[in-house]
Amino acid sequence: MTSRTARLLITCPDKPGIVSAVSSFLYNHGANITDLDQHASAPEGGTYFMRLEFQTPHLDMSRQLLAQTFEERVARHYNMDWRISYADDVKKMAILVSKVDHALMELLWRWSSGALPCEITTVISNHDALAEAVGRFGVPFHVVPVNKDNKVEAEAKIQALLQGNDLVVLARYMQILSGDFVTGWPHRIINIHHSFLPAFVGANPYQQAYDKGVKLIGATAHYVTADLDQGPIIEQGVERVSHRESVETLRELGQNVERNVLARAVRWHLEDRVIVHGNKTIVFA
Amino acid sequence: MTSRTARLLITCPDKPGIVSAVSSFLYNHGANITDLDQHASAPEGGTYFMRLEFQTPHLDMSRQLLAQTFEERVARHYNMDWRISYADDVKKMAILVSKVDHALMELLWRWSSGALPCEITTVISNHDALAEAVGRFGVPFHVVPVNKDNKVEAEAKIQALLQGNDLVVLARYMQILSGDFVTGWPHRIINIHHSFLPAFVGANPYQQAYDKGVKLIGATAHYVTADLDQGPIIEQGVERVSHRESVETLRELGQNVERNVLARAVRWHLEDRVIVHGNKTIVFA
Amino acid sequence: MTSRTARLLITCPDKPGIVSAVSSFLYNHGANITDLDQHASAPEGGTYFMRLEFQTPHLDMSRQLLAQTFEERVARHYNMDWRISYADDVKKMAILVSKVDHALMELLWRWSSGALPCEITTVISNHDALAEAVGRFGVPFHVVPVNKDNKVEAEAKIQALLQGNDLVVLARYMQILSGDFVTGWPHRIINIHHSFLPAFVGANPYQQAYDKGVKLIGATAHYVTADLDQGPIIEQGVERVSHRESVETLRELGQNVERNVLARAVRWHLEDRVIVHGNKTIVFA
Amino acid sequence: MTSRTARLLITCPDKPGIVSAVSSFLYNHGANITDLDQHASAPEGGTYFMRLEFQTPHLDMSRQLLAQTFEERVARHYNMDWRISYADDVKKMAILVSKVDHALMELLWRWSSGALPCEITTVISNHDALAEAVGRFGVPFHVVPVNKDNKVEAEAKIQALLQGNDLVVLARYMQILSGDFVTGWPHRIINIHHSFLPAFVGANPYQQAYDKGVKLIGATAHYVTADLDQGPIIEQGVERVSHRESVETLRELGQNVERNVLARAVRWHLEDRVIVHGNKTIVFA
Repeated sequence: MTSRTARLLITCPDKPGIVSAVSSFLYNHGANITDLDQHASAPEGGTYFMRLEFQTPHLDMSRQLLAQTFEERVARHYNMDWRISYADDVKKMAILVSKVDHALMELLWRWSSGALPCEITTVISNHDALAEAVGRFGVPFHVVPVNKDNKVEAEAKIQALLQGNDLVVLARYMQILSGDFVTGWPHRIINIHHSFLPAFVGANPYQQAYDKGVKLIGATAHYVTADLDQGPIIEQGVERVSHRESVETLRELGQNVERNVLARAVRWHLEDRVIVHGNKTIVFA
Repeated sequence: MTSRTARLLITCPDKPGIVSAVSSFLYNHGANITDLDQHASAPEGGTYFMRLEFQTPHLDMSRQLLAQTFEERVARHYNMDWRISYADDVKKMAILVSKVDHALMELLWRWSSGALPCEITTVISNHDALAEAVGRFGVPFHVVPVNKDNKVEAEAKIQALLQGNDLVVLARYMQILSGDFVTGWPHRIINIHHSFLPAFVGANPYQQAYDKGVKLIGATAHYVTADLDQGPIIEQGVERVSHRESVETLRELGQNVERNVLARAVRWHLEDRVIVHGNKTIVFA
Repeated sequence: MTSRTARLLITCPDKPGIVSAVSSFLYNHGANITDLDQHASAPEGGTYFMRLEFQTPHLDMSRQLLAQTFEERVARHYNMDWRISYADDVKKMAILVSKVDHALMELLWRWSSGALPCEITTVISNHDALAEAVGRFGVPFHVVPVNKDNKVEAEAKIQALLQGNDLVVLARYMQILSGDFVTGWPHRIINIHHSFLPAFVGANPYQQAYDKGVKLIGATAHYVTADLDQGPIIEQGVERVSHRESVETLRELGQNVERNVLARAVRWHLEDRVIVHGNKTIVFA
Repeated sequence: MTSRTARLLITCPDKPGIVSAVSSFLYNHGANITDLDQHASAPEGGTYFMRLEFQTPHLDMSRQLLAQTFEERVARHYNMDWRISYADDVKKMAILVSKVDHALMELLWRWSSGALPCEITTVISNHDALAEAVGRFGVPFHVVPVNKDNKVEAEAKIQALLQGNDLVVLARYMQILSGDFVTGWPHRIINIHHSFLPAFVGANPYQQAYDKGVKLIGATAHYVTADLDQGPIIEQGVERVSHRESVETLRELGQNVERNVLARAVRWHLEDRVIVHGNKTIVFA
């Protein structure tokens, strides 16, 4: 991937001829396809998904005109839901966090080492515990306290701080966002849940896992919807455990899974590798 | 492990001195401890679990007297729940199965190659589809058809066929056994459930996993209790999947997980490595 | 995949326009592309690899003419190395084995359950130990004893028995095939080596792994070349082990890895998912 | 584990009666055994290894006297190689690093969150690139440049800085330490090698892995001996890769494996869970 890379994501009813139409259009306008992945939800009559990466230095028209022409010549004909994004149009990302720092630190560390293609614009927390740790990375840190009585105002403040961002990551943010808040950011809020969903929805999943006596613990990165812990799953991971673990050591082992699962999901989102379809994701990883 | 190996399993309130008392008792009666594992459920005041393997050629008393003396000199003092088993007292195992053969075949194959220390006495199915496959291994095969109207009689027939067995394995037996049946075999029926429990309890878990869009599928081996799919978990495993899988390919991938998870759980049970405590297991693997 | 599925595999110098040219050609001749995967070995100026699955019921010409036309209109222009295979042209597969049965049994079991799209024509062994086990699956079994003195004759006999097969699988065949033999089956002999290559080349890898004290053991499926254990790797897998394992239990644990790794590699080969390039493989799995 | 925890590690010829002798000794002197693990290298006549954790608040003698008495009453009789360590006797650890930061950062982060029971006394590097990053954690950072001409002096400077430490961790330190240096720290230097040893010994293992076309990459934490990359292995891990990876992305994926493998190995060492025997380790994890 270079700064000249663009990505085209397509969802449409499956029909013969799509690959030919799309690839010929791009080729004829000077775009060099360097990656292509596709998926059909059924052998026939299903939904078709496509992701192309192409290089733009020899495009024969502006980005705006390319979009318009693609819509008229190709997309309309196949009834496509589509978008093009350009790697040099760097996504802006905000992170919400409470007190535990592992998920946040993993994102900041990967970002500072160049592994997350985005700008981290701000970190918002309902506590001030992580102010210094965030400050070291040169990222603005805001405290927005939340309690039973100020939830509406608090969310309004957070919304104001989030303006202009493309993605919001909940890196163990222990507050439940309201339905109104969430619906304003469709498929643009990623949460890390500290269990292998759909097992152990809700609060304190490590305690639930301990009580159940499972032999593997997991973590799930998913888009947030108004339905708690039920949004489209992007990525999951697990780690073996035994009867020897306490709730505390489960939590500690689980943190490593959470860190890796969240970092992969965020990266895939930033690289436009995720298409949401109904309550499921297509991940062209 | 040899034919002279014995195993002692202990559950008792945790107190200082247990290791010393048990190991000294065995040593003083000519038993050579060759493996020892233990677990305490809490740093203090919890429950204590212990598994010892010892060699018996130089025992200074009969097995019966050893048991009686251990009870009087050690177990009573510590309020122990305990049992000794001898490797030359080969466990008898029966398998219940419906039509799909992968879990059954895995057990038969491992058993025939010497990896499962037991006698497989009988295979019982509600269909005759697998008669020939079982016959090749020289194991008696019985068909007991089950329908809505004959469930009580069918279970009675199965019970009769199971007499004398130490362990019953449900290797994808698609019938739900009655509570009466199940309570007669406490911690002696092992089931393989084709999901990562507690996710996807009940029927058709691969369809449920497909609908949910999970990125890992799993299998769970557990003891059967009267509460469907809720018994103590012995072992679990998972396999990565993606949006590309259909319900059918999920099932196929899942079969490999099921085979391995069930085979490990059965082996651990046969080697007296599993202690049930409440609704959880301690597995000294 | 149905009996009307065809697969096109392409290797050629990377250039703009390939996807467009290939997909338009197929579309224009009535082939419906249902799967497409591609890879470029470098961002620019590398080698390009492509695999397409397409459905053939509406082809507007014969298979022979399609091949000829594709060569003239597309392949020649891009200097392609290519082949088309049809799912209804079922591949013939032979298996060579010595005495241990796990890899062979796994292939036979998966094949009998429909998971390996091929015809298993024959099993050849240098021992008669597995005659009965193979016979149960209705597959012809041949014994060709091998010793120091008869190696040339033995290989000639094996060659005669292999005539007409598309693929030869060494499912733990403990003889080293001669360079002459091997070069006659380029990328058409798959071996399962019982280590994580390139670690532990040669004889008795589990003993080597034990002596080294590794914490993971592995297995490697690879195409056989004249260079022992050095051919292109198709698939690998590992399993955690600890200091508790003996050479014997390493072998037992390793067998499960071998079975799964070999079965995946064979399936991918049969589904035309593997392209060999130099001493490496591209696997469109 | 609490500040009152002690650990006893034993290696000796295997004989009946060891568990009884050791556990009775501890019990009789007021030590409460809370964890016990053991291993025998062979069913009979092998080497015996044991690790006990015990709680010390009710010891009936001083630590010094306990050691002396244990030697006289138990250890001598069984020809034991043994040591006791106390959790409140916090180990001092130094880290050597070059320019890449992921392994170092992982250790600092886990240490600062309380997951590594040690004091990190100093970080030494042959470059100044990581001075600021280390400074944030409040750990002294020293630059000791190394080149062909000053190797002896440089090692002398490093030795001086390391005085008083219990453990040295090479967190991707790209210099080869001399045999003299290494033999002064027997089983007290841990290195993270960025391959699945014994595959890809020496320089640039990700390039080697790329050239070989392996389907899994790995990392190995081992004690350093005078023999390059050949010391006793403590822990290993792997990650799946495909033909799509470049050397660069292999390196990036590998870093996550390195971080986790090294962190586990260091923790086990700090908790006295590792016994070296010949060129192998017993890890009571």
